Amino acid sequence: MYVLVNVAMSADGKLSTRRREQLGISGDADFARVDRLRAEADAVVVGVGTVLADDPSLVRFDREHRAHVGKSGVPARVVADSRARTPPDAEVVTGDAPTYVLTSEAAPADRRKALVEAGAVVITAGEERVDLPTALDTLEAEADVSDVMVEGGGELVFSLLAADLVDDLTTFVGPLVVGGRDAPTPADGEGFVEDFARLHLDGAEYLDGGVVLQWTVEGRGTTE
Amino acid sequence: MYVLVNVAMSADGKLSTRRREQLGISGDADFARVDRLRAEADAVVVGVGTVLADDPSLVRFDREHRAHVGKSGVPARVVADSRARTPPDAEVVTGDAPTYVLTSEAAPADRRKALVEAGAVVITAGEERVDLPTALDTLEAEADVSDVMVEGGGELVFSLLAADLVDDLTTFVGPLVVGGRDAPTPADGEGFVEDFARLHLDGAEYLDGGVVLQWTVEGRGTTE
Ligand SMILES: NC(=O)c1ccc[n+]([C@@H]2O[C@H](COP(=O)([O-])OP(=O)(O)OC[C@H]3O[C@@H](n4cnc5c(N)ncnc54)[C@H](OP(=O)(O)O)[C@@H]3O)[C@@H](O)[C@H]2O)c1
Ligand SMILES: NC(=O)c1ccc[n+]([C@@H]2O[C@H](COP(=O)([O-])OP(=O)(O)OC[C@H]3O[C@@H](n4cnc5c(N)ncnc54)[C@H](OP(=O)(O)O)[C@@H]3O)[C@@H](O)[C@H]2O)c1
Repeated sequence: MYVLVNVAMSADGKLSTRRREQLGISGDADFARVDRLRAEADAVVVGVGTVLADDPSLVRFDREHRAHVGKSGVPARVVADSRARTPPDAEVVTGDAPTYVLTSEAAPADRRKALVEAGAVVITAGEERVDLPTALDTLEAEADVSDVMVEGGGELVFSLLAADLVDDLTTFVGPLVVGGRDAPTPADGEGFVEDFARLHLDGAEYLDGGVVLQWTVEGRGTTE
Repeated sequence: MYVLVNVAMSADGKLSTRRREQLGISGDADFARVDRLRAEADAVVVGVGTVLADDPSLVRFDREHRAHVGKSGVPARVVADSRARTPPDAEVVTGDAPTYVLTSEAAPADRRKALVEAGAVVITAGEERVDLPTALDTLEAEADVSDVMVEGGGELVFSLLAADLVDDLTTFVGPLVVGGRDAPTPADGEGFVEDFARLHLDGAEYLDGGVVLQWTVEGRGTTE
């Protein structure tokens, strides 16, 4: 499974405010870039924190670009959601694309059922929390998803990095400071100590008054 | 007073680990760049959090560059430290450069006295916390410091931005992910909501496997 993480952050490394309210970090040129990335992916992945905060539909993509790269159909949506907290009427479940909800054994049966009735496919891996390596393997084996773009948030991204599942990381760095010790960042979670996820900078490009940084992940971090 | 903030952060916007342990974010080329910035400043400023975490001496600077820009003497050191928690034997107090400790009325008299005995100049502004606009004005009037470089941490930087005291912001973005919802970032504090500190990107430059981003601060943020 190829995993690209793409997020937009402020110059001080924030994905949103301490109130977890979405804000305009980038602009039209970056939205177009993200639409192309989605077009290249088999699925777009987010954590349930992002679903609950923003209720994104994740159905937008660059159709022309998708045809150009030789992919058919539309990118699926995937939510990492251990306890099946995704509301069955969330935009990521409704709307015109397949939806996979990655859950754990801890997800109540009635909530899974409600998601299935709403049209989502539920994949279970892990006891308390989604076991991401197993869940992504299942997604690849059962849904033919082998190329995903993760759009955040920071809790999910950190877990993916800690499990050494991320190939590339792209950040748009925007012309503002959000601040806040409790505001979400591109990689939250527990955090690495001593050994860090090591990156290689592939390029930097001016866009929308900020800069897009493209990194390849080269080494894994450790959390203790 | 001209205020430049310069910090080194990981690709995910962290200044250090959740344990507040310093880590190698940049390299020799960036250290040389920072030594030039210090050479151009009348003083180098940090928060007491940084003093307690890292015990920096802040005496290094590029002597040749200082002569070249026509400045004499050495850059002073300034600590924002409301309760005078800076240990009198901290590297920032000892060592071969003047030290100013910005405190508030809340600083116990015995701790102020110990700092003065150790050779520091104590400036008091504000009741519970250092009143930064007043403290910087006093520094300018009494110590002839009119050009400072702030080296962090994120708590102090956020307060400076919230008080609209920052002219320029430079971040080195390094090739690693640190992660951690509790790790320090370039601007912590309460955080802005709705209105954010607005920046203009003046340039981006490859350095030490990462990139240096130079921003001008153009508009202030609001915290409620
Ligand atoms: N600027 C951007 O590009 C961007 C992009 C995305 C999000 N955001 C912002 O980020 C914020 C949300 O981010 P977030 O970090 O709170 O949420 P998140 O990463 O979207 O979701 C985190 C949740 O995912 C679930 N999860 C399932 N398996 C997991 C695993 N193995 N590891 C970690 N999490 C797992 C957890 O809930 P369970 O334990 O219940 O499963 C966890 O709380 C919002 O404010 C949103 O606006 C910004
Ligand atoms: N990578 C880098 O470039 C870099 C640079 C610097 C620091 N760091 C890291 O950052 C961490 C320390 O950062 P930090 O944010 O905890 O500490 P900090 O910003 O250095 O210091 C914060 C302290 O400054 C004092 N202060 C006085 N007046 C203030 C005001 N008006 N507003 C805000 N604070 C004021 C406060 O203590 P009182 O209330 O007691 O006064 C506050 O707790 C360390 O882990 C260090 O390694 C990294």
